Amino acid sequence: MNNNRLTDTICAISTPPGVGAIAIIRLSGPDAINIANTVFHGKDLLKVPSHTIHFGTIRENDKIIDEVLVSIFKDKKSFTGENAVEISTHGSPYIQQQVLQLLLKKGAKHAQHGEFTMRAFLNGKMDLSQAEAVADVIAANSETAHQLAMEQMRGGFSNEIKKLREELIHFASLIELELDFSEEDVEFANRQQLKDLVTKLHETLHQLIQSFNVGNVIKTGVPVAIVGEPNVGKSTLLNALLNEERAIVSDIAGTTRDVIEDELNIKGINFRFVDTAGIRETTDQIESLGIKKSYEKIDQALVVLLMVDAVTISKEKLQSDVAKIRERISNKQKKMFVIANKIDKGNEQEVLQKFEGIDDVVFIAAKDNKNVEEITNKLYTSVAEGLVNTNDTVVTNARHHEALSQANDYLLRVLEGLDQQITGDFLAMDIRQALYHLGQITGEISTDDLLDNIFSKFCIGK
Amino acid sequence: MNNNRLTDTICAISTPPGVGAIAIIRLSGPDAINIANTVFHGKDLLKVPSHTIHFGTIRENDKIIDEVLVSIFKDKKSFTGENAVEISTHGSPYIQQQVLQLLLKKGAKHAQHGEFTMRAFLNGKMDLSQAEAVADVIAANSETAHQLAMEQMRGGFSNEIKKLREELIHFASLIELELDFSEEDVEFANRQQLKDLVTKLHETLHQLIQSFNVGNVIKTGVPVAIVGEPNVGKSTLLNALLNEERAIVSDIAGTTRDVIEDELNIKGINFRFVDTAGIRETTDQIESLGIKKSYEKIDQALVVLLMVDAVTISKEKLQSDVAKIRERISNKQKKMFVIANKIDKGNEQEVLQKFEGIDDVVFIAAKDNKNVEEITNKLYTSVAEGLVNTNDTVVTNARHHEALSQANDYLLRVLEGLDQQITGDFLAMDIRQALYHLGQITGEISTDDLLDNIFSKFCIGK
Repeated sequence: MNNNRLTDTICAISTPPGVGAIAIIRLSGPDAINIANTVFHGKDLLKVPSHTIHFGTIRENDKIIDEVLVSIFKDKKSFTGENAVEISTHGSPYIQQQVLQLLLKKGAKHAQHGEFTMRAFLNGKMDLSQAEAVADVIAANSETAHQLAMEQMRGGFSNEIKKLREELIHFASLIELELDFSEEDVEFANRQQLKDLVTKLHETLHQLIQSFNVGNVIKTGVPVAIVGEPNVGKSTLLNALLNEERAIVSDIAGTTRDVIEDELNIKGINFRFVDTAGIRETTDQIESLGIKKSYEKIDQALVVLLMVDAVTISKEKLQSDVAKIRERISNKQKKMFVIANKIDKGNEQEVLQKFEGIDDVVFIAAKDNKNVEEITNKLYTSVAEGLVNTNDTVVTNARHHEALSQANDYLLRVLEGLDQQITGDFLAMDIRQALYHLGQITGEISTDDLLDNIFSKFCIGK
Repeated sequence: MNNNRLTDTICAISTPPGVGAIAIIRLSGPDAINIANTVFHGKDLLKVPSHTIHFGTIRENDKIIDEVLVSIFKDKKSFTGENAVEISTHGSPYIQQQVLQLLLKKGAKHAQHGEFTMRAFLNGKMDLSQAEAVADVIAANSETAHQLAMEQMRGGFSNEIKKLREELIHFASLIELELDFSEEDVEFANRQQLKDLVTKLHETLHQLIQSFNVGNVIKTGVPVAIVGEPNVGKSTLLNALLNEERAIVSDIAGTTRDVIEDELNIKGINFRFVDTAGIRETTDQIESLGIKKSYEKIDQALVVLLMVDAVTISKEKLQSDVAKIRERISNKQKKMFVIANKIDKGNEQEVLQKFEGIDDVVFIAAKDNKNVEEITNKLYTSVAEGLVNTNDTVVTNARHHEALSQANDYLLRVLEGLDQQITGDFLAMDIRQALYHLGQITGEISTDDLLDNIFSKFCIGK
């Protein structure tokens, strides 16, 4: 780890850009309080205690740039774990820029993306997965995404990983100790206990890995594809769900040629609806392109709504369509519901008879908003069930998912090795590899490149 | 004054809208600390000293909304002069809304525009003109505008008004005392001293009133109209001044049909350039509309740049154009410069001879950027001279300008009355009127309507 990163004092505007009542300019690093003190007129900031607020002016020579409040944080007590100052100015972009420029003149460096949070990690104020969650907390725009990010930031996920990793390190040490005494053929590490631990670890990792399917979609929104023949009422349903006229609705079959995407928040989970052009056979080139996109969207979706005209569709066509989609989504953790629309237009008995034997059908009349709520209920339940079925801890981060999968692969090799009674040195290699990947999650193992990659996705000032 | 305004506790998001690293939600009022304490988990905020910062979580029941820093300000020591709390959250719009909604549930009211600053005024933390300057400080986007607003916020302007007003109040009291002894024909108020004071006051007010011409344009930007025949190079000059291709430049006369406006900051003063369609006679309807707009822009401008083709224009046409504009701007504090463009295209002697006897000519070649800097110098000097000619204190606020003008009118009546040796009761009436208008500036005299009108222009959260 390159700890030269910590010798500079960094500064940045930390509040959202633009005009507001208040803006915050943040300083962190060994000289943070010194630098602030050279431009602040009021109390001597070097002599005030940590976590106190002071009124005064920021001046460049004799010119007053602003009347401000300055908050002082000393050493380990700050967010970054180093001396830090927050200057609360009037929220004018002109003043924000002037103060920032002045701090740069006085020797501060402009902070990189996420550099404050990176310092919090480097100074041991949080582990890497917690630091990553800071960006997720800021980006979360639904209740569930917010809760998952908040849990991760508060260490729920990494505590679990750390505990298991420590137990595994214990075994790794014992096995490596055996290697030192290899001529004596001793076993310090009880093989059955090791097998029990690795099995337990594998089960935990497996659950965490599985949780990513749900965690990822909760973070980014659950993709839902509405698929069906032209003119069955897909746009009307989408409008009914969203309660406003977003898609172009007309009676001409094939009106919706472009893929339109819109979000609906159901009880704290975001669903991203994609209204597709349907999947019928066609010779129209543009229409054919739309159908290709429909299949792509089915592949990307977690939930597929196959929508049909309950009255005009034939039983054969219905069964063929359902089969087509089921095949497309088979072996993936996806849900499919059949939406039978326009039920008010036909004979109830005939319609019901036609849908016999088909699972998960919702009968609706989208135009009159009839039974549309049942769809939102089913959507919510389909994802919420997924949440309940997984471990309480949910993985939302692709990097963590990758590291968990890698670690899990090596654990499976350890289990295989134990069954085949391979020697300690091979076991130790695989255990070390598993430990390496687990360590990447919480940051016990990290490289400059990894950190740069992670924090470059943060905003400046965080 | 309706002081019921101060019994509520108000709250608002005070940082700019959108996503950032940090957001501030502000509370002010008698219950500010109580309300914050009901949602904050950490130290007991009722027991901490003023101007201290505390780390903890904001919770709704058991659900953690965010990890926050809370700043505590007690009683008279806060910006508003009442108990105040600033909650520093992660800058996610979701979190900001959740915290705000929670505070509203706990009994806080959502702050109106400028309500925090209005409370600072009502609680005597600043006078009205200082409070008004807070909005100007936030809106200022040039160095000079920022400095004027900062001076006003720090009381430079109102201190001057207050001192003069107090002296006048002294005389008003003496004259009113005379009225109580009216049968005895005494003169407590020395008429010569009164006359001296009122004369001095009148001179001061006159200077302040004059300063508004400059003060107002510094605040909003100095309007500059570039006027001239099509194809003389107005757009090219504008581009040269702005150093980028903003207006459409072509060789076809009359290309610039719409009025284009752009800003240039010269040594801390903002100039708003309007490139007009020229003022030639035309039968083209759209062109004719453009010419009408040109005259409107001349009327609105503080500086007019009459631009001509130095080579092709005839001496007669030149003199007629200069005369036309001079007539249009006569008797107004406006400057006019003649810009003789394309000097590289003709015979220098002939050109110079043509412009003999015409004041304030700048010879340039806009296409090659030749001598364009002289224009920026002249623009700066023309406004900066105005600044030097006025009193150091500059009035930037239209309401203050109106009140000063009203007060000044009554002072002139007092001076007239003194010359005509009218009785004390009439003098007293006029002095009281002058005092009333002066008092409106600093807020000794104010009404709910006036305050609502002033603070409705603020942003929410200030």
